[in-house]
Amino acid sequence: MTHTLVASQSKEVIIGFDQPFCVIGERINPTGRKKLAAEMIEGNFETVEKDALEQVRAGATILDINAGVTAVNPNETEPPLMVRTLEIVQGLTDTPLSIDSSVSSAIKAGLEVANGRPLVNSVTGELEKLEAILPLIKKYNVPVVAISNDETGISEDPDVRFAVAKKIVEHAADYGIKPNDIVVDPLVMPIGAMGTAGQQVFRLVRRLRDELGVNTTCGLSNISFGLPHRHGINAAFIPMVIASGMTSAIMNPCRPAEMEAVHGANVLNGTDGNCANWIKTYRDHTPAAAGGPAAAGGEASAARSDGRRGGRSARRGAAA
Amino acid sequence: MTHTLVASQSKEVIIGFDQPFCVIGERINPTGRKKLAAEMIEGNFETVEKDALEQVRAGATILDINAGVTAVNPNETEPPLMVRTLEIVQGLTDTPLSIDSSVSSAIKAGLEVANGRPLVNSVTGELEKLEAILPLIKKYNVPVVAISNDETGISEDPDVRFAVAKKIVEHAADYGIKPNDIVVDPLVMPIGAMGTAGQQVFRLVRRLRDELGVNTTCGLSNISFGLPHRHGINAAFIPMVIASGMTSAIMNPCRPAEMEAVHGANVLNGTDGNCANWIKTYRDHTPAAAGGPAAAGGEASAARSDGRRGGRSARRGAAA
Repeated sequence: MTHTLVASQSKEVIIGFDQPFCVIGERINPTGRKKLAAEMIEGNFETVEKDALEQVRAGATILDINAGVTAVNPNETEPPLMVRTLEIVQGLTDTPLSIDSSVSSAIKAGLEVANGRPLVNSVTGELEKLEAILPLIKKYNVPVVAISNDETGISEDPDVRFAVAKKIVEHAADYGIKPNDIVVDPLVMPIGAMGTAGQQVFRLVRRLRDELGVNTTCGLSNISFGLPHRHGINAAFIPMVIASGMTSAIMNPCRPAEMEAVHGANVLNGTDGNCANWIKTYRDHTPAAAGGPAAAGGEASAARSDGRRGGRSARRGAAA
Repeated sequence: MTHTLVASQSKEVIIGFDQPFCVIGERINPTGRKKLAAEMIEGNFETVEKDALEQVRAGATILDINAGVTAVNPNETEPPLMVRTLEIVQGLTDTPLSIDSSVSSAIKAGLEVANGRPLVNSVTGELEKLEAILPLIKKYNVPVVAISNDETGISEDPDVRFAVAKKIVEHAADYGIKPNDIVVDPLVMPIGAMGTAGQQVFRLVRRLRDELGVNTTCGLSNISFGLPHRHGINAAFIPMVIASGMTSAIMNPCRPAEMEAVHGANVLNGTDGNCANWIKTYRDHTPAAAGGPAAAGGEASAARSDGRRGGRSARRGAAA
């Protein structure tokens, strides 16, 4: 069984097929957040702290930390800012962290100060990237997100993306890095622009699991880019990728619709033992805008044994 | 490609892997609805008419019609009531119908008056049932729901349930009925009572599709029986069974959470061309209780072409 261990100083989480879906909180990222970028440049980490605590409260398994405040001189600005941000967040919470940067020196600087066993986000199939990042992964004995694009860009052909992922896994093996320390991002295209984007990723995730034995992740909200009511698309996508074998996603845990989909899919995927987390979370749930009364569904107890055998009569009896 | 044709006098719908998920509206069913049962016995069909129109408006693909008002003398009471209910509903809407009864004479009576090509719900693997129902299916050239239990009851072993489904398909072949006219219900157990119920059904649906080439259905709400906030579990279950290959469900289309999951899964499964139905349905959606502002997700247009290539930068840019 593929287990990817990610840890803070005092807390371990495992990404795996038999584990609850791993929610990597995406909020601490100044890309596209001008106000946050300006604050971080000024040395003001109030929003970072708030985002860290809110995401932990909302149920994030891991917090992604990105300090890419500017495209100007990132090799100079990003490493010290990554260090400072990591130190602040790991001083605030024991939730394990992900060091997210496209700047190799920022990843290296982050690895030097991060406690425990952080996830590195990311390496690609580009040779220069592989040669810069994989030695760090080996040296610090940490897991890494592998994005399935290379020098030729991002292929629209899922077979090519699979081949790139395979190439990264093989390169990593040359460094002595095992597949269970590689979390492949098969790349999710916006469904509004490419109607086969969903089916592509479902097939890819299944192949990555069955043929390479690796855990997988994605930038979740990309799927709904440009569509109205994106949270509805995201909330349908989560159970579908989980059913296909995806084990983590980089997403916003502060969105109730998406987190409800994660919790529900965990129940159905058999990774929420006795539905304990579901019952704890939704015991007192009152529907905001349901199509009718809550009926029998409102009862805050585990299933009654008389519902056990399903089938015709139970099916009717259980109809809400 | 497996296509199950269901039709009213003037409208055809197809159940299939390449089709939008088929929502079989479950509301017109007096089982467990004492008031409705009493009304129907009295010859009052106001609720039936209201339920028919509401379900059609809510997006039902097919309407299930059940007239099982009593367990006393169903052979006498159910056939004429089935006929009357069918006549009323098919006079009101052109949505195709499903004749739902455990009483063979009620199914026969229904088939004599139903327009078009109704679905029959259901036959089981019990020999007596097979011999009563399959000749009707052949004679009237209609599709049938096949429930995977037999004389031995409902097995908790999914392999046994698969074997029962296979047996029904083979029996049907002896009558000259093709697999594409059989819609297998693999039987969904309540996840609160059996933690593997979800994984069982996902595997079963995939096998039924890959090995028998049949469409599938289920009594959807059974999965959440006994749990709090059942609609959340149902709404996560729908995308997961669709990702596993299920093509229809007997469910309540008047529940917004469940229907949103159906619409979202259709988009992601590639059966809502250009996301047209999603955009039409949710163009003006305003979130009731989101975790923050709607941000870029609120735009009511198809994805912009600059979001096409996904990947690192798009992933960040697209984060809501």
